[in-house]
Amino acid sequence: MKTSLERIKNDIDSLAKISVTQGPGCCRQTYTKEFAEARDYIVNSMKEIGLSVREDAVGNIIGRMEGKNPEAPVIMTGSHFDTVRTGGRFDGLAGVVTALEVARVMKAEGFVPNCPLEFVATAEEEGTRFSGGLFGSRAMCGQLYENELENSLDLDGISMAQAMREYGLDPEKVDEAILDPEKVRMFLELHIEQGPVLDAENIEIGIVDAIAGLRRWVITVKGRSDHSGSTPMTMRADTMLAAAKAIVKGTEKTAELADGTMVTCGSVEVKPGAMNVVANETIFKIDCRGKNMDSVGAVLETIRESLEESVKTNAGLSYEVNEILRIESVYTDEKVQDVFEEIAKEKGISCKRMLSGAGHDAMIMSAICDVAMLFVPSLNGRSHVPEEWTDYEDIQKGAEIMYEAICKLAV
Amino acid sequence: MKTSLERIKNDIDSLAKISVTQGPGCCRQTYTKEFAEARDYIVNSMKEIGLSVREDAVGNIIGRMEGKNPEAPVIMTGSHFDTVRTGGRFDGLAGVVTALEVARVMKAEGFVPNCPLEFVATAEEEGTRFSGGLFGSRAMCGQLYENELENSLDLDGISMAQAMREYGLDPEKVDEAILDPEKVRMFLELHIEQGPVLDAENIEIGIVDAIAGLRRWVITVKGRSDHSGSTPMTMRADTMLAAAKAIVKGTEKTAELADGTMVTCGSVEVKPGAMNVVANETIFKIDCRGKNMDSVGAVLETIRESLEESVKTNAGLSYEVNEILRIESVYTDEKVQDVFEEIAKEKGISCKRMLSGAGHDAMIMSAICDVAMLFVPSLNGRSHVPEEWTDYEDIQKGAEIMYEAICKLAV
Repeated sequence: MKTSLERIKNDIDSLAKISVTQGPGCCRQTYTKEFAEARDYIVNSMKEIGLSVREDAVGNIIGRMEGKNPEAPVIMTGSHFDTVRTGGRFDGLAGVVTALEVARVMKAEGFVPNCPLEFVATAEEEGTRFSGGLFGSRAMCGQLYENELENSLDLDGISMAQAMREYGLDPEKVDEAILDPEKVRMFLELHIEQGPVLDAENIEIGIVDAIAGLRRWVITVKGRSDHSGSTPMTMRADTMLAAAKAIVKGTEKTAELADGTMVTCGSVEVKPGAMNVVANETIFKIDCRGKNMDSVGAVLETIRESLEESVKTNAGLSYEVNEILRIESVYTDEKVQDVFEEIAKEKGISCKRMLSGAGHDAMIMSAICDVAMLFVPSLNGRSHVPEEWTDYEDIQKGAEIMYEAICKLAV
Repeated sequence: MKTSLERIKNDIDSLAKISVTQGPGCCRQTYTKEFAEARDYIVNSMKEIGLSVREDAVGNIIGRMEGKNPEAPVIMTGSHFDTVRTGGRFDGLAGVVTALEVARVMKAEGFVPNCPLEFVATAEEEGTRFSGGLFGSRAMCGQLYENELENSLDLDGISMAQAMREYGLDPEKVDEAILDPEKVRMFLELHIEQGPVLDAENIEIGIVDAIAGLRRWVITVKGRSDHSGSTPMTMRADTMLAAAKAIVKGTEKTAELADGTMVTCGSVEVKPGAMNVVANETIFKIDCRGKNMDSVGAVLETIRESLEESVKTNAGLSYEVNEILRIESVYTDEKVQDVFEEIAKEKGISCKRMLSGAGHDAMIMSAICDVAMLFVPSLNGRSHVPEEWTDYEDIQKGAEIMYEAICKLAV
């Protein structure tokens, strides 16, 4: 392999040390002192490699390698360099360090691409310091929300605009980060899986065929707070029972579809919350994801039908659905998937096509260009925790595939 | 009818006025100033009627009418005169006032029973000032808990023992309240239904055929907090889903049994409680009641089987059941049920045999004698709220049946 395990390990370990927290985890939130220190490390590394480096208007770092045809649309690769509050050392960094290593090997090998290449480290993907995630890539795609910089506050009440100024950026100029879609050919991202599939199946690399779409429903069921002993089952308007039925039906629908659609109820509030009182109000929250938005819709409609059925058969029951989030699924470029797979096969690296359940910068970038993603395994599927772990050897395998793929794509 | 609507209404309204709260509701907690005032009203009424009155060692008030055979076991009738904190004016009082009116009419009619009759107003049935309910009847049956008087504290930290002393009772002597089972033949109680059945079916009187048994389970399901997007459905240990399935299965079992067994989940706690995290812990509480304890057991076993099934099919799931309460069901005396029904038919009063879902003093008294109960309708099934309502006419119908029944039974 042309990539270096030692260099990858050194980059990750060096960047992971730049953290508010001690120990194995990482806390490096956007526009903080640690974020600036990490920026300096990345900028210096890019300069050492020989890239021409710019920091865009929101703090994304872009190292450019000119191509034979400087006017050709660029191929970008990278990931984010911010972390969640109690994060690990691989989420985001794995892709940033892969980008650095790919550029480094290209320079060492004397590879000159046809189109320009840009090696990217994005800001505020996690959205844990301020509220809106995927900020850096949204800025590049012109997708910032209205007054986002003023309205997004951190826990100390500091607005994003203020934090940008303190970091050395001008919030008045964020539009300058917007990329011209005509000038961007592709965005390639390596990321840790953050799920258990590769680790459980002992597969080294995941080739993401789609990034899941997501819809979130907050469902409020209202009924009657009857006595649990003196109210016959048939005379109740039991909101918790209606919620339980809907959750079970929705889950059964995902099994029936068997296309990877997922549904989760991770939040339930039952009122008044007494053992001897039938719940007169239950608020439960549904998170439904999948590559096929029709399937996501079908699961949610199954939940609605179950609630309708409960309302029909229990006088006094009613419900309200509030869709608080809807993100369409993104299909990655099939030709690039094939390139990834060919290279993996050549090199004897095990791989599988798979869904990305979580959102990533590549999802946002799909608005302006083709995208593709590689996953590396997460030990026990754990992420966003200090014990998050990916073997450096797996990251190297991913970097090697990314390197070879860009070499093929950029000629 | 020999009973008087006017006297019943006057008794209830007079006693209901003795309340900490203003308005239609009633708050009269055990051993308070208001409780003492109500006691005085009841004692004076009993004396006026011509009963020989005693207050037992825990504050139960007993008005005795001697029988031709003074050594024969007594027939007791009555209910409680304490209320919940934000109660209505009928819960308990309906039965106390019925007892007074029955005694009054007997005296007026010159009826002399064969066995002695005792007209009773019990203390601390609700258990809202101190923790353990059904206290007055438990004291009569020798069922107080160890150190109950010292351990039961009200919201101000006053122990039951101290409150008894301030009320004029000697907590050292509570055992003197214990009745000799040989001397008690029967306990008859009229009570408001506290459920919706009679009101919904437009029936005037309920003849209780059984008082529901009750078992309560606190179930803790433990699993894994996986990401809702990156964890395939088949790789989850979703505790909320396991709970939802168990709730639905338990409910389906009650429908299958179709014998009035009821199951309620009125309390659910989901951790960590985030939309994008599969719940790693769910604590849900099950209240299961019915006349047939085998059916109650079968519903709970169905819930357990559902959890077992979830554990078997989802690696990482486990559960724990903690039974925090178990009270056996009580069947009322069938001959008395028949007497009640005959009288109702003679008088053209509509009635039905039914289950009491809530517990009552009669349930406790069944430990030492036969018991029987009459229910009067609760408007919309509402109870333990200020808007609790029963038409005075319905209470009179119940009192009339109670009067005629005791006349028949006491000869």
